[in-house]
Amino acid sequence: MTPAPQSGTNTIVAADTRINARWVIPVEPAGVVLDHYAVIIQGDRIAAVVPQHRADTHYRTRETLDLPHHVLLPGLINLHGHAAMSLFRGMADDLPLMTWLTDHIWPAEAEFVSAAFVADGTRLAIAEMLRTGTTTFSDMYFFPEVAAQTAADIGIRAQICFPLMDMPTVWGSGPEEYLAKGEALIRQWQGDAFIMPAIGPHAPYTIADGPLQQALALSQACDVAIQIHVHETAFEVDEAIRVAGERPLTRLARLGILGPRTQCVHMTRIDDADLTRLQASGAQVVHCPESNLKLASGLCPVEKLRQAGINVAIGTDGAASNNNLDLFGELSTAAMLAKAVSGDAAALSAHQALAMATLNGARALGRDQELGSLEAGKLADMIAVDLSDPFLQPVYDPASHLVYSNHGRQVSHSWIGGVPQLQDGALTRIDVPDLMLRVNAWAERIQQHHKH
Amino acid sequence: MTPAPQSGTNTIVAADTRINARWVIPVEPAGVVLDHYAVIIQGDRIAAVVPQHRADTHYRTRETLDLPHHVLLPGLINLHGHAAMSLFRGMADDLPLMTWLTDHIWPAEAEFVSAAFVADGTRLAIAEMLRTGTTTFSDMYFFPEVAAQTAADIGIRAQICFPLMDMPTVWGSGPEEYLAKGEALIRQWQGDAFIMPAIGPHAPYTIADGPLQQALALSQACDVAIQIHVHETAFEVDEAIRVAGERPLTRLARLGILGPRTQCVHMTRIDDADLTRLQASGAQVVHCPESNLKLASGLCPVEKLRQAGINVAIGTDGAASNNNLDLFGELSTAAMLAKAVSGDAAALSAHQALAMATLNGARALGRDQELGSLEAGKLADMIAVDLSDPFLQPVYDPASHLVYSNHGRQVSHSWIGGVPQLQDGALTRIDVPDLMLRVNAWAERIQQHHKH
Repeated sequence: MTPAPQSGTNTIVAADTRINARWVIPVEPAGVVLDHYAVIIQGDRIAAVVPQHRADTHYRTRETLDLPHHVLLPGLINLHGHAAMSLFRGMADDLPLMTWLTDHIWPAEAEFVSAAFVADGTRLAIAEMLRTGTTTFSDMYFFPEVAAQTAADIGIRAQICFPLMDMPTVWGSGPEEYLAKGEALIRQWQGDAFIMPAIGPHAPYTIADGPLQQALALSQACDVAIQIHVHETAFEVDEAIRVAGERPLTRLARLGILGPRTQCVHMTRIDDADLTRLQASGAQVVHCPESNLKLASGLCPVEKLRQAGINVAIGTDGAASNNNLDLFGELSTAAMLAKAVSGDAAALSAHQALAMATLNGARALGRDQELGSLEAGKLADMIAVDLSDPFLQPVYDPASHLVYSNHGRQVSHSWIGGVPQLQDGALTRIDVPDLMLRVNAWAERIQQHHKH
Repeated sequence: MTPAPQSGTNTIVAADTRINARWVIPVEPAGVVLDHYAVIIQGDRIAAVVPQHRADTHYRTRETLDLPHHVLLPGLINLHGHAAMSLFRGMADDLPLMTWLTDHIWPAEAEFVSAAFVADGTRLAIAEMLRTGTTTFSDMYFFPEVAAQTAADIGIRAQICFPLMDMPTVWGSGPEEYLAKGEALIRQWQGDAFIMPAIGPHAPYTIADGPLQQALALSQACDVAIQIHVHETAFEVDEAIRVAGERPLTRLARLGILGPRTQCVHMTRIDDADLTRLQASGAQVVHCPESNLKLASGLCPVEKLRQAGINVAIGTDGAASNNNLDLFGELSTAAMLAKAVSGDAAALSAHQALAMATLNGARALGRDQELGSLEAGKLADMIAVDLSDPFLQPVYDPASHLVYSNHGRQVSHSWIGGVPQLQDGALTRIDVPDLMLRVNAWAERIQQHHKH
């Protein structure tokens, strides 16, 4: 497919690692399943994706890994979440969005969230994401400088969006302080291969025009992305129309916020004018189906967006509203739900769903030249899924199994920039027993508080 | 909760097995989580559900099992499926119902389905169901006598619905033969504690009034249930109105088919008159959310049905349209989807979802006096789910975790009538390596055929 050495020559190329997989799904070209292929890694990059017999004669590597029952594919990209909220997993369920936020989440955050909370909670989330196949995630939470350092220390790629809103929080007194701290975060990490600093205005209803315009100026000055919750519920849209006579997306467009560097999360309400605005601006949409279902927020018409040429990525949202960070589960829900919402069983096929969780995510981050598919020259961010499990048999089509029969625990291996993060289901760079002690200590404190 | 010995006395009761669990969710009473409880088993029945300290002083058992990080709950009841179709898992996806049936499933069935196919496919399905927490299932497929014997040999409870339709199939030439073979099946198994023979007319659109009336007569004569696909799609309802001027459910009511012994599977289209008919008749509804989503069939309004007092059970449907038989995954989808469909985040809470998969299933089978909850005197059909997994932490509410964070692989133990079927994740009564050899042999034959 992408033979690095000239064909016809007998040059043998030296490289670091060769991975032989029963199947490779490169995502680009689209819809392809390669049988008995090898991926060659040199440094942090993919050197080649070639048939195993060709690898035998053209490459000599220091290491070889055989994955005879596995499918190798690009690492998953989870484009929306609030990592540290994993410490609140299952604390409050079966409640509408605003009750859940105002009666449970916001009070618990005011009581417990600190730099130490974010360090431990983010580590818990990263552990679950790595275990279930995610190699790049986006985060939007307080103490983003702590989340950034935690991700960098582990070696997972992360877009870290600093929070921005009108009200004071545990992280700052208001927009001025958020923007000052956020700019420092951007200066610290700009250009880093792993950490992508970004701006995270919470939502149109929690932020005035002034700070939004400052966010836009900062985004343009530093070429960083903006990620914002938009049109999460009908209530949000209806209230904006009632109060200000304008749909939130219209307001963002008027302020110049919509563009290819802006990621609109949720988008469960999309009228024809919204669709045109998204198309014209090149803005990104991030679909969070399980959170939208669970909070009864609404249904994002992903197939309609896809057909309109709008890039749609996928996210789990935080574990407090999902309640897990398994992107394979999210993918399955997305693929099934898209069919029901569009009334078309052919909508969002298994291969399209896999692209949504890989290449579309890379596009939304502006890094599709480097991430999101298995191609020579791209970064070696990859995962292997073991399809030998008895209850995945028979295997007629590995793409179907990844989306419709699988869950993240079948992921056996992962690499980020060529560095192994998961080997035979074990995390290589996170001390899980130590993490559990910390998590249990937080849980005891939170549970005590919750009882009173 | 249900102390068998009189309180105040010091009688020590002898019994077979005591299971100490960190949590017990008995389902009845509803919404309860019991901390540090024990379940006492005597023979095939539950003798008591009591606090562990009370078990210490009041029971002496031959065996004790400690499950210190586990939640014990009734075994799940999967009320709709086509077990042997697991051999077609992932063979054809992303297609509308009728294309999927006519171009893929029906031709493959005509080519491959035999008694041997049903024996191996049913065993594969039972293995996956036992592994993921199901202890009773309903089946509707060809060669039901083979499925019944397979289930009985393993010791899982099963409602076995013999197929009935106008057209000839691999199992018979038409209604007369189906009914004759079906009656023999009923005579063979009637009164059995494990196998519940039943009548499975395929769907209103594949069967004329005559055989339906014969099915009803047989059901009444032998007191067996009828399970039928009804209102699976809008097309089914619209076509019936166009051709016969009558909605399918109206026709079933007119023929006297609707009643407490009839299980209506799917029901994605329900108008006010349908709702009244279901209520008045006491008919059962079986919700199959993932199949309905994946085939873009429609959405069953389960919360509306629940509020109208209609009993709603749950099923996975066959693995050819799901593509797995993990009822915990199905439960999660059901709980999330009910919120979106009703527009109410409080709809189908975690506890209500667990009841749907246990006690409601027992009710639909007419066996809620014996199955579906952990109460003294009921059959000891139980499962344990290990919540010690790092990525289920923290645990504030085990019911929330079972529905929203869990998947079936966390099930560690199961018992059916007090007999262990799963121990530390290993099936005790199925030879999995032998099963895999058989499954792979079928897969090779089917794959060869599919290529041509």
